[in-house]
Amino acid sequence: MDELTRKFGIRLKRLRTESHLTQEQLALMIGVSKKYVSNIENGRGNPTLTTIEKFARGLDVTASELLDGVDSKTS
Amino acid sequence: MDELTRKFGIRLKRLRTESHLTQEQLALMIGVSKKYVSNIENGRGNPTLTTIEKFARGLDVTASELLDGVDSKTS
Repeated sequence: MDELTRKFGIRLKRLRTESHLTQEQLALMIGVSKKYVSNIENGRGNPTLTTIEKFARGLDVTASELLDGVDSKTS
Repeated sequence: MDELTRKFGIRLKRLRTESHLTQEQLALMIGVSKKYVSNIENGRGNPTLTTIEKFARGLDVTASELLDGVDSKTS
C-alpha cells in the first residue's frame, strides 16, 4: 500500500458511505466483486482508468471528482 | 480504444504540448517509454492510478485535474 492508493481507498469509502451504499451494492452496480471493493478501500489495489470511471459512475461523480485530493504527497 | 481512453489521450497530449514537452521528455521524466506515451495519447492504453499520478506530476497538475472532462459519455 502506498500513500496514493491509501488516499484513494479513503476517498472511495467516504463517497460510498455518503451515497448510503454498501460495498456489496457498489460492487454489484459496477460489476466487480465485494472483495475487490474492500481491497481498494483498504488501499490494496491499483485500479485502471476504466475501473476508476466505473467507480465514479456508481457513485454519481466524475472520475476527476473521485480523484479530488487523492495524491501521493503526504499531507 | 473506447471513448474514455480516447479522451484521456487527447487530454494528456494537450497538457503535454501546453507544457512544451515532447513525448520523449515526458516519458523520461516519469520513467516510461516514449512508445507507451504515444500509445496512451492515441487512446490505446488503460493506465493505472499510479501511472495516472505519474503523468499528472510530470505535467505539474493533480490527478484530478488530469482527468478533468475525461469520461466515457460521448459529448
